[in-house]
Amino acid sequence: MGKVTKIPRPTIERLALYSRPLEAFQESGTPIISSEKIADLCGVNPAQVRKDLAYFGEFGVRGVGYDVKDLLREIKRILATDRTWRLCIVGMGNLGSALALNENFRKRGYHFVAAFDSDPAKAGMKHPCGLKIEPIGKIRDLVKTLKIEIGVITTPPGKAQRVADLLMDAGIRAILNFAPIQIRAPECCVVENVDFTLKLENLVYHLHKSS
Amino acid sequence: MGKVTKIPRPTIERLALYSRPLEAFQESGTPIISSEKIADLCGVNPAQVRKDLAYFGEFGVRGVGYDVKDLLREIKRILATDRTWRLCIVGMGNLGSALALNENFRKRGYHFVAAFDSDPAKAGMKHPCGLKIEPIGKIRDLVKTLKIEIGVITTPPGKAQRVADLLMDAGIRAILNFAPIQIRAPECCVVENVDFTLKLENLVYHLHKSS
Repeated sequence: MGKVTKIPRPTIERLALYSRPLEAFQESGTPIISSEKIADLCGVNPAQVRKDLAYFGEFGVRGVGYDVKDLLREIKRILATDRTWRLCIVGMGNLGSALALNENFRKRGYHFVAAFDSDPAKAGMKHPCGLKIEPIGKIRDLVKTLKIEIGVITTPPGKAQRVADLLMDAGIRAILNFAPIQIRAPECCVVENVDFTLKLENLVYHLHKSS
Repeated sequence: MGKVTKIPRPTIERLALYSRPLEAFQESGTPIISSEKIADLCGVNPAQVRKDLAYFGEFGVRGVGYDVKDLLREIKRILATDRTWRLCIVGMGNLGSALALNENFRKRGYHFVAAFDSDPAKAGMKHPCGLKIEPIGKIRDLVKTLKIEIGVITTPPGKAQRVADLLMDAGIRAILNFAPIQIRAPECCVVENVDFTLKLENLVYHLHKSS
């Protein structure tokens, strides 16, 4: 299998999606899976699945399917999800707190190693997730000493850009932003936004169109 | 402006994105905005913005820009976000609880009118968001009497499909799913999935590639 240089972003997103049922099949001991089955479980068409997987050379055996273990290992290697990553979360309100307690992150190798909040009343408190809540002023130090790689922002929108700037100044180059604003970042940094209401807007457009 | 029949889904998603800075400009009283400014604030290229807006006829004046109020009103009309929508949330754990308390939903016209949980210990409790937590068994009745249009699922993954089936049986045709599984639904229903870890996988791929 050759070195992969440029894979389109939608393919990367779908590879992550494909890994979900593959994990379930690996856990249940299913050895082989067809592109049709992956497609069906992920809501993608089978030709798309085959096309996406073809970027990585010959995984499948025509008429038989893909080896679940091999395929999953290779996808994880490509996505770099075959290792753990160190995250911090900034903004320990309801959402930040819920995310810090969400098992799905740790299960996938995303470990929260620090939690920050600008509220002096929260600083020093031990959160139920096990982390001590630190003041914003310690972002720079802790990002370095704890070797934090990804910052998660769950502050109110008015504070998100300043927090992003603090994270980036401290050397963070990847941010997952839950605040409903667009974070400005230089080219060296990647920002992914999670805006629940954008998803709802797709839903209501479809409801409205079909009514 | 003619009747719009078929707008590509990525355009719909971007229209929702464009509406965010437009709202901010409307609030601050800015009358005119350029495609470059919208593009810059949304992280999209200006030609894309102009192309997306061209689906709806002639909004802009070349060299001047778009009328903020007119453009926002038209986008909201197209997306059907110029009205309020009635939602229920199923699964009142940490995440469900955080979402029920999130101001961003109500601000955008998404009103939670019912909350459900399968835990008998929670049923009947009043949640800080103001809703009484109802047992799962009341989904069918309450969806009808409260005219609920959208269901939000924040249950553990193992319960999500059953909850989706209950919602759809009750007449719900739009689901926002936060459980890390793919929900199966008939063609008449739309399901949008929010999987935070898929976003993280894009981030780590980019971190890994650039390191």
